[in-house]
Amino acid sequence: MKPFPNSFLRMQKLSQNIAALHAIHNVLEWDQETYMPKDGIESRSLQLEILAGMIHKQKTSKAYASTLSELIDISSGTLRDPSLQPPFQAACKAWRRDYLQAKKIPNAWVKKFAKTTSAALHAWSQAKKNSSFKEFAPHLQKIIDLSRKKADLLSFEEHPYDALVDLFEPAMTTATLSSLFSSLKQPLIQLLKDIQTTKPPREDFLYQYYPFNEQLQFGQKLLSSMGFSPDSSRLDLSSHPFCTGIHPKDTRLTTRIDTHHLTSNIFSVIHEGGHGLYNKNLPLEFYGTPLCEQISLGMDESQSRFWETRIGRSLPFWKYFYPLLQKEFPSQLSKISLEDFYRALNIVKPSLIRVEADEVTYCLHVILRFEIEKELIMGSLQVKDLPDVWNQKMDELLGIRPANDAEGCLQDIHWSMGAIGYFPTYALGNLYAAQFFETFETSHPTWEQEVSLGNLSFIESWLKQEIHQHGKAYNSQELIQKITGKPLQVTPFLQYLQSKYSQLYCL
Amino acid sequence: MKPFPNSFLRMQKLSQNIAALHAIHNVLEWDQETYMPKDGIESRSLQLEILAGMIHKQKTSKAYASTLSELIDISSGTLRDPSLQPPFQAACKAWRRDYLQAKKIPNAWVKKFAKTTSAALHAWSQAKKNSSFKEFAPHLQKIIDLSRKKADLLSFEEHPYDALVDLFEPAMTTATLSSLFSSLKQPLIQLLKDIQTTKPPREDFLYQYYPFNEQLQFGQKLLSSMGFSPDSSRLDLSSHPFCTGIHPKDTRLTTRIDTHHLTSNIFSVIHEGGHGLYNKNLPLEFYGTPLCEQISLGMDESQSRFWETRIGRSLPFWKYFYPLLQKEFPSQLSKISLEDFYRALNIVKPSLIRVEADEVTYCLHVILRFEIEKELIMGSLQVKDLPDVWNQKMDELLGIRPANDAEGCLQDIHWSMGAIGYFPTYALGNLYAAQFFETFETSHPTWEQEVSLGNLSFIESWLKQEIHQHGKAYNSQELIQKITGKPLQVTPFLQYLQSKYSQLYCL
Repeated sequence: MKPFPNSFLRMQKLSQNIAALHAIHNVLEWDQETYMPKDGIESRSLQLEILAGMIHKQKTSKAYASTLSELIDISSGTLRDPSLQPPFQAACKAWRRDYLQAKKIPNAWVKKFAKTTSAALHAWSQAKKNSSFKEFAPHLQKIIDLSRKKADLLSFEEHPYDALVDLFEPAMTTATLSSLFSSLKQPLIQLLKDIQTTKPPREDFLYQYYPFNEQLQFGQKLLSSMGFSPDSSRLDLSSHPFCTGIHPKDTRLTTRIDTHHLTSNIFSVIHEGGHGLYNKNLPLEFYGTPLCEQISLGMDESQSRFWETRIGRSLPFWKYFYPLLQKEFPSQLSKISLEDFYRALNIVKPSLIRVEADEVTYCLHVILRFEIEKELIMGSLQVKDLPDVWNQKMDELLGIRPANDAEGCLQDIHWSMGAIGYFPTYALGNLYAAQFFETFETSHPTWEQEVSLGNLSFIESWLKQEIHQHGKAYNSQELIQKITGKPLQVTPFLQYLQSKYSQLYCL
Repeated sequence: MKPFPNSFLRMQKLSQNIAALHAIHNVLEWDQETYMPKDGIESRSLQLEILAGMIHKQKTSKAYASTLSELIDISSGTLRDPSLQPPFQAACKAWRRDYLQAKKIPNAWVKKFAKTTSAALHAWSQAKKNSSFKEFAPHLQKIIDLSRKKADLLSFEEHPYDALVDLFEPAMTTATLSSLFSSLKQPLIQLLKDIQTTKPPREDFLYQYYPFNEQLQFGQKLLSSMGFSPDSSRLDLSSHPFCTGIHPKDTRLTTRIDTHHLTSNIFSVIHEGGHGLYNKNLPLEFYGTPLCEQISLGMDESQSRFWETRIGRSLPFWKYFYPLLQKEFPSQLSKISLEDFYRALNIVKPSLIRVEADEVTYCLHVILRFEIEKELIMGSLQVKDLPDVWNQKMDELLGIRPANDAEGCLQDIHWSMGAIGYFPTYALGNLYAAQFFETFETSHPTWEQEVSLGNLSFIESWLKQEIHQHGKAYNSQELIQKITGKPLQVTPFLQYLQSKYSQLYCL
């Protein structure tokens, strides 16, 4: 690439300050979920609130606007220098988008939102403990009201939910999501029903006692094989596994260890590891610019799902790792064959908890949330009615009902964080990943052999080359088209599921 | 206390933002020393630099000045409302002091200093590794020059070193320090000489193998007895133990565990615990104001030394805790009597490293650094001559000479961080603690009995009542006078040492 123009460098410098504030924000959130003593929550809320206010102030400052204006006309979006290399053009457009969005949200709203969500987060974790949605309901109401207000502030053409989704998945709309999800819904329900007519494989051995330390060590081994070094990453514990990027050289992953559930930790680690590699491989030379940022949440999720489902739940992967796992847990696994282990990992059955769902039912959990969020934002669903609607939809989609709120509508952290419009990106991640995988397979026809020898680095290289290194040079739809030659479709995902599970369940 | 005036509340609100930024700064530094992957250092430096700039900007803002002006005339220091309660008066004066100090230091100097110390810190750690002062000398020269410049910017009456000391210990002067230290020097040297004529107690058993986990647990037990709860505090590991207050409800302590040095962890924990209680007991209702801040580094050190030396190295303390320690480490300690253990804890011998020094020699290490710093700032000592002067002074004060720079003038991190004028506060902490202890003993004549039953809470209560709860309502000298009825003197400290060690060594 040509060296940056000077005006780009000036904008990068300004933008680096904001990136550093975001990084600080991420450290504070990571600390809150991992090590912070619980009574620190009140002061942490104040800290996050102040930081959010500062980020907003800097993003909407005169200096920001005038420096950006040297690169792009803010009102029209016309680039000052049309000969600018395409990635720089994309960066300027992303900066403008950010600026316009931030300008629409007043500082007072940002501060109020930060305060509300921080308190809600705390309330949610208590409410979940007590399995009492009532305790969380007033907080959720405030978050819905603030989110609806936000949609109005941001403005939208068709649906207020569009404005919220767009924050997580630029250019995605409620209409497109509705169409994609309606193409998914019936085939998934049907596949699940087909599977349910067969005899389920055994999986009891996954729920024996697996000691904590050995599980943690195995998780660290997996991350090391995926390409992580302790010099630039960490694995910690939290009640809800996550990955946060402080900087490409400081990736923080967390997992959750259940001593009677072997795969909870394993798939958390691989999943968060997929996110982490995206963070790790962003191009450092563009730090502070959109060219060193993930495209969207959906694209980020495509990376975690690519690793978790396409690699981590594959037979070749376990050809290599299962003997290592058996060595770690001989009394539990020595008599279980690789094939039985593989079948157990890929068991399909309706379950209540999204994060523990299999590949077939996962998107149904997302669709449920999508349908609920849309209605909460429209006002056609009242917060107080949420548990009932949740339980009823679970029944429709998966044929089961939660026994209580903790395993029902209180299971996810997202709403307490104010992340309305976030859930659809989980399903998008699966769709992107499946479509990417078709291309990956074409360019690496021997991937199964390589992986079964424990070689994973070529996967990271391919993802880095095709996705990570571009930052926001493309949006999701452009990148899908560039890599796969096609727009986003549900077919690759459905075909993959139907093929894999027909074979596994002899359908 | 009467409710706050409205103008005070407005100022508190502004000031709370700055306190939150300081808290964030502390989280980042804590993370850097405990969990941050090492490659995160570059981005962390940028984060800290940006945050420091923001704090400086807010502290010197027009809004800050005009809000403060409603309470106090900034140029003359006259209070707008002379009937304001004394603690509020003190807070206004402390705010004004902060503002004037920040205003005197131009942003360009702050940036240059940050850059210089960042490079110096790196050079120091390399130079220490190579035990080569020459590698560090040019950096130290720059720091001395910048510090001298800083003294000029801040202005001073008698000695440029006054201006630097004042930043860490308000209202303390070089003249007072010189006078205090010259009263300490000969009696300490004499006491050390007297002790050296006797047969040293055995201490070999402290250096057996003590497993890591059990040591850590014992440390946690000590903190719990001192009054800490895991709900509002943490104990972690770092290469140099420290305490950082994120908020009174979020106190972070660290320790260092050497599996062949039992007391390193124990006294680190008690020492940092002393700092931590000061943070924990600051009055929450004044959060963000000087009334919820520690008075000075010396006063903070008085709290850690009060606990570490007067309680943690006392016989009554170990009457209770030694049996617990023996239970934890039976094979190492069951045959060692309480008296032998107590004598080993209080062994006195000249040593090269300040942080490992006993109570008798500790202040001599500080006096050495004070004498050197003063002369470096005056220019009467050249940086290149530092190692020779250091070694010669070690000989004079302690009768030993470092074999190399690493265990000599390169041992401390402080100069590389630009903290000139900091060292004297370590000795002041000992003097304050000893003088406080006389009063404490008068009001709690049965303290030894209580402590030997494991009851420590009355100590925390007394310190909270007398010191912690006042924040900066008094400066160090006022508080010493208020509590003890006398100005600061060296006699309580010397009398304590002479009495304790005459008995221990049968002098």
